[in-house]
Amino acid sequence: MKQINIGLLGCGTVGTGVAKILIENKELIAARVGALLSLKHVADIDIKRDRKIKFDEGVLVTDARKVVDDPQIDIIVEMIGGVGIAKELILRAIDNGKQVVTANKALLAAQGNILFKAACAKGVDLAFEASVGGCMPVIKSIRESLVGERIKSMTGILNGTCNYILSKSTYDGIDFEAALSEAQAKGFAEADPSLDVEGIDTAHKLTILISIAYGMEINFNDIYIEGISKITPMDIDFANQFGYRIKLLAISKNRGKEVEARVHPAMIPFGNQLSNVNGSLNAITISGDAVGNMMLYGLGAGMMPTASAVVGDISDLARNVLSGSRGRIPLLSYQMENIRKIPIMPVDDIFTNYYFRFSAADRPGVLSKISGILGDRGISIKSVHQKGRKSIGSVPIVILTHLAKEQDVRMALAEIETLDIVSDRPVLIRIEETNSHI
Amino acid sequence: MKQINIGLLGCGTVGTGVAKILIENKELIAARVGALLSLKHVADIDIKRDRKIKFDEGVLVTDARKVVDDPQIDIIVEMIGGVGIAKELILRAIDNGKQVVTANKALLAAQGNILFKAACAKGVDLAFEASVGGCMPVIKSIRESLVGERIKSMTGILNGTCNYILSKSTYDGIDFEAALSEAQAKGFAEADPSLDVEGIDTAHKLTILISIAYGMEINFNDIYIEGISKITPMDIDFANQFGYRIKLLAISKNRGKEVEARVHPAMIPFGNQLSNVNGSLNAITISGDAVGNMMLYGLGAGMMPTASAVVGDISDLARNVLSGSRGRIPLLSYQMENIRKIPIMPVDDIFTNYYFRFSAADRPGVLSKISGILGDRGISIKSVHQKGRKSIGSVPIVILTHLAKEQDVRMALAEIETLDIVSDRPVLIRIEETNSHI
Repeated sequence: MKQINIGLLGCGTVGTGVAKILIENKELIAARVGALLSLKHVADIDIKRDRKIKFDEGVLVTDARKVVDDPQIDIIVEMIGGVGIAKELILRAIDNGKQVVTANKALLAAQGNILFKAACAKGVDLAFEASVGGCMPVIKSIRESLVGERIKSMTGILNGTCNYILSKSTYDGIDFEAALSEAQAKGFAEADPSLDVEGIDTAHKLTILISIAYGMEINFNDIYIEGISKITPMDIDFANQFGYRIKLLAISKNRGKEVEARVHPAMIPFGNQLSNVNGSLNAITISGDAVGNMMLYGLGAGMMPTASAVVGDISDLARNVLSGSRGRIPLLSYQMENIRKIPIMPVDDIFTNYYFRFSAADRPGVLSKISGILGDRGISIKSVHQKGRKSIGSVPIVILTHLAKEQDVRMALAEIETLDIVSDRPVLIRIEETNSHI
Repeated sequence: MKQINIGLLGCGTVGTGVAKILIENKELIAARVGALLSLKHVADIDIKRDRKIKFDEGVLVTDARKVVDDPQIDIIVEMIGGVGIAKELILRAIDNGKQVVTANKALLAAQGNILFKAACAKGVDLAFEASVGGCMPVIKSIRESLVGERIKSMTGILNGTCNYILSKSTYDGIDFEAALSEAQAKGFAEADPSLDVEGIDTAHKLTILISIAYGMEINFNDIYIEGISKITPMDIDFANQFGYRIKLLAISKNRGKEVEARVHPAMIPFGNQLSNVNGSLNAITISGDAVGNMMLYGLGAGMMPTASAVVGDISDLARNVLSGSRGRIPLLSYQMENIRKIPIMPVDDIFTNYYFRFSAADRPGVLSKISGILGDRGISIKSVHQKGRKSIGSVPIVILTHLAKEQDVRMALAEIETLDIVSDRPVLIRIEETNSHI
């Protein structure tokens, strides 16, 4: 039987999962691929740690560069993470003509254009299914199944930590800090959770998705990003009363010459299947001109689900080696010469529905002032809710709007904020009303 | 730019959708695939019908055999349906060395082993993504993404007509006949709906799925099949009271040396995402040893979603032609030499939970008799519900069981049916309690 040699760089959580699958399911994989996927070398700085895996003698090594330079190795799997050494090693592997697998969304979001160009020039494949949505085959679906499809929009819950925190807040009524502590205690959140809770990880993933869906260069910097740390139980409770759940969404819409791409907490109606995606689960709906809406749903992170996606990529690349078809699928879904710089629409230009909550003085005329300012900016009010009287003199006024332009909304809120009848900063949460229902 | 020539056989609903996508999104597809997918010939007995498509002069022809024999054509797309002429044309196309795409699940379920062997012997690809689940890329996910995965079970809602009828009955409280009429009026159900409502179409799809998931020869005949025509509003209502929805499920479980494969209506708890899949939508959960549970969800039928899946297949095969990698993925997911005859477990041997409804005489001692017979067969009762007294002298007794063996259940029900205190046949609906939650 033919053999494909694999070099794994980095044997942390996901790397260990990859090694485990390749070793434990070796025969199963061979029966499917038609070749033995052999883990020739695993490079990690810590080769003493017990990973509950019995590696053959000499497999574990410390020098990743040597693995990348090993002429017997066909496929390099980068599981180191970060944008430093990982980038160097991937470029070196490409230069050596290796097929490369990575799950490193931070690196792809920051340096993807350089990496993809290098791989394309060298005629090797760079696979990255596990960089978005763990076990959900979203990259493969866009690149290979939806080839005939004009993708209109995508809406995803792509960060398990945020979804866990928001689900906890929703169902247990606890605030952000308490939910975050619980997520950390359970190992769902990092000690430094900012990459997750500030929406940056979700934006890394969105930038990859819009690139392959619309055929555009990787552009992380222009994505609007807002995290979940300011979401309060009070807003979650109001959302619930109006028939919405609050989720951290990655949203993209094809606007012809521009692409809308943004990451922020949003209210979505109970009727939208994404509203039922709870805990650390991920999901994404993709809307196309023929396909209507389709949804993928599953574990978006964690050792084994992510490792499973990596093994899927390894198998794909092994098949390309076996059939001599490197470069069979263009890396970014479109042929390199068709990839354009498509601008991301400034967030000021988007139209959506809004939820505002004001802490207002409990006296006559307040609502008239607020609604007057909104009206002056052309923001049409759908409903107003004044709930009870608080003892400290300010009451929450909640306003839901019809479609409005973000720029108008920001200017109106800035003006309202200056009113002496309003204490605290107004709360703004966007409502995704119609899109990606399924 | 390179060109791949396509011959489309059959231009009915889905065939027309395929032609539409290939023509309208020609440039988009070329930008992705890197070649022009050109619809060289479309064969249909009725070439006069207005399909709202402007075909080039000479594209529409009546003789399908001529298209299959055209040496310039690379890919044949069979959209005729049925098991007669479709089989002959596919075999002829394979023999001519063409790549072939089909969505014909009835043909694959009946003759798949012959077709796959012929394609394998000739070294051509036979793609069939659109045969299961419309736009959901379930075949691709199993064959290409879950390569490292030991698939433990699959649970699917795979027939839009049945799901529409059951959803209507659930939410509008109407009976099977009324819901079916409505589905027919809306075009969701065929004039002869038996293939759908008797579960046969779902079983066609399940037989394809288990074949690629577990590496077994196509085996349609041993799948247990039960349709939805006997599901009453009363049982739907009871299910609802106990926290279940009734869905027509395709269920498979990997039991080591055997495979469990069955199609029948089943109660699933509200907490299972499949219970929220309504109307004509389809969904499938796949459970694997690393991946946990993943779910795909989308339009399982209809002109454009199915056509989109066909175009995905065409693009895949075009890429194989372009890169000279025919046979890159084994047709049934496993290398042909690894495909075994795995027996399907007789339904008598399965263990599951059950819902029984008896129409019993309204007098003392009845329950003791029924529960005594169940107990004698080792069937453990979870709960008993006697709801009200009916004027005609018989009352419904509903019993939910713990895990029990189907054979014991059947024998117990046969014995209970002979009791003179029981009128009508007992109703049996299986409950899928724990599997494929997500």
